[in-house]
Amino acid sequence: MDTTEPAFRRVAASFAKQGLMAHLGARLGEVSPGEVHIHLPMSPSVTQQHGYFHGGATTTIADSAGGYAALTLLDDATEVLAVELKVNLLAPAIGDELEAVGTVLRSGRTLTVCRMDVFARSGSERKLVAAGQQTVIAVRA
Amino acid sequence: MDTTEPAFRRVAASFAKQGLMAHLGARLGEVSPGEVHIHLPMSPSVTQQHGYFHGGATTTIADSAGGYAALTLLDDATEVLAVELKVNLLAPAIGDELEAVGTVLRSGRTLTVCRMDVFARSGSERKLVAAGQQTVIAVRA
Amino acid sequence: MDTTEPAFRRVAASFAKQGLMAHLGARLGEVSPGEVHIHLPMSPSVTQQHGYFHGGATTTIADSAGGYAALTLLDDATEVLAVELKVNLLAPAIGDELEAVGTVLRSGRTLTVCRMDVFARSGSERKLVAAGQQTVIAVRA
Amino acid sequence: MDTTEPAFRRVAASFAKQGLMAHLGARLGEVSPGEVHIHLPMSPSVTQQHGYFHGGATTTIADSAGGYAALTLLDDATEVLAVELKVNLLAPAIGDELEAVGTVLRSGRTLTVCRMDVFARSGSERKLVAAGQQTVIAVRA
Repeated sequence: MDTTEPAFRRVAASFAKQGLMAHLGARLGEVSPGEVHIHLPMSPSVTQQHGYFHGGATTTIADSAGGYAALTLLDDATEVLAVELKVNLLAPAIGDELEAVGTVLRSGRTLTVCRMDVFARSGSERKLVAAGQQTVIAVRA
Repeated sequence: MDTTEPAFRRVAASFAKQGLMAHLGARLGEVSPGEVHIHLPMSPSVTQQHGYFHGGATTTIADSAGGYAALTLLDDATEVLAVELKVNLLAPAIGDELEAVGTVLRSGRTLTVCRMDVFARSGSERKLVAAGQQTVIAVRA
Repeated sequence: MDTTEPAFRRVAASFAKQGLMAHLGARLGEVSPGEVHIHLPMSPSVTQQHGYFHGGATTTIADSAGGYAALTLLDDATEVLAVELKVNLLAPAIGDELEAVGTVLRSGRTLTVCRMDVFARSGSERKLVAAGQQTVIAVRA
Repeated sequence: MDTTEPAFRRVAASFAKQGLMAHLGARLGEVSPGEVHIHLPMSPSVTQQHGYFHGGATTTIADSAGGYAALTLLDDATEVLAVELKVNLLAPAIGDELEAVGTVLRSGRTLTVCRMDVFARSGSERKLVAAGQQTVIAVRA
């Protein structure tokens, strides 16, 4: 990850303004054209009733990863808003951290469609715990 | 809301164990058979980059509201896990608080399907900002 | 249903051009601002392996009902394309016919979001067998 | 594709019973463990109002491809029913035929989650026109 790249700086600047990301303890990971990673360490602040990652936490970092993946392919005068998302929660989300990967499936002038995958990581293991799709709309800044 | 009812007590007990709900400042509202409300006051901890409620926060309380609506129709030995959810974000989520309403569309022995609606409230105004559907699986406790 | 209304005529003209609707034996029902009904009689041409209505047939008439509901609220120079849809199949779709009801949840300049409900009808009974949501984009004709 | 394989024969036998597949002119393609292809040639019977493949036709073959992909990983005494599906229609579906590919993401005892991709083929070109996810429930035959 070259943190001096414009795409990274632009995503990082927006990420820093998302109060929810900081509040959950999420961290921006790799940023490349059409793909963004977000990491969320386990903590009592992100759990559901059984002590696993809450599906809402899983979905939240997936949503941001997808939105930022879309942003990397748009020009500087454009911002993004998610208009819909769908997530299948495939397995209990247990581990040291979650890693959400947003990937652009189709980038259009108005709408971008992203795939979102979320992995639970424990030591060197990495397991897919959620997969989804999202539609993002480009708005003039 | 009769807070002495078994359904309310059961939902409230589980809600209290969801670390994420407390961390976001969410509060359990009305609980009746097949319908549960969750409130989320605006704070810098739940925002996206424009200062609106983050779509992930909207989705998180919708997810919990739906899951608990499902729980109200199941017996005491049963717990619930969301297996998938889909949300359309209809309008910018701006206001004093969000109110998510989960409503059971179909309650089955294995699967329950819920509708989820999220309203932004500002003073006496109440505007629909998100609508979705969710599938929940019943698991033996 | 006043079949002389412009909204009805516009929807009916487009419906008549959908080869798939005629091929399946689907029939346009009530058309009012923001709501469109489509009927699909049972026949061996629309079944899955158990002789029920195929989930694809259910989804197809839901998709058209939603798209046309969106169209009723847009001006004459605008056409619609569905960009995404999600359906929960709530119960086996068995009966004399299916009735899909598309209802606009939010009508915007670019995007319209619709709810889609599909009922199975047998004699005087009417049972909800599928529920979904759809996003439609307006395109200049 | 070894058409003598048990998985292929089982899928083919069920496919042959789906009245809708025959009525649309769909044809079963490759079948391997966890992956099934279905082909749909262009014809006036599968179009929407602009003469493209109808989103319902696209979704229908995706739904069957996903369901059969799930079936390939289950034992002989088990059948499948789709309980929900979500599709993003990424581009106008124009071409000589559509090819839907269903792939199992997670196979469980009760629920299987599949990815569904639909390609439009024209001569040697192959373009992704739809992508989705589906949940299938296993039922004792």
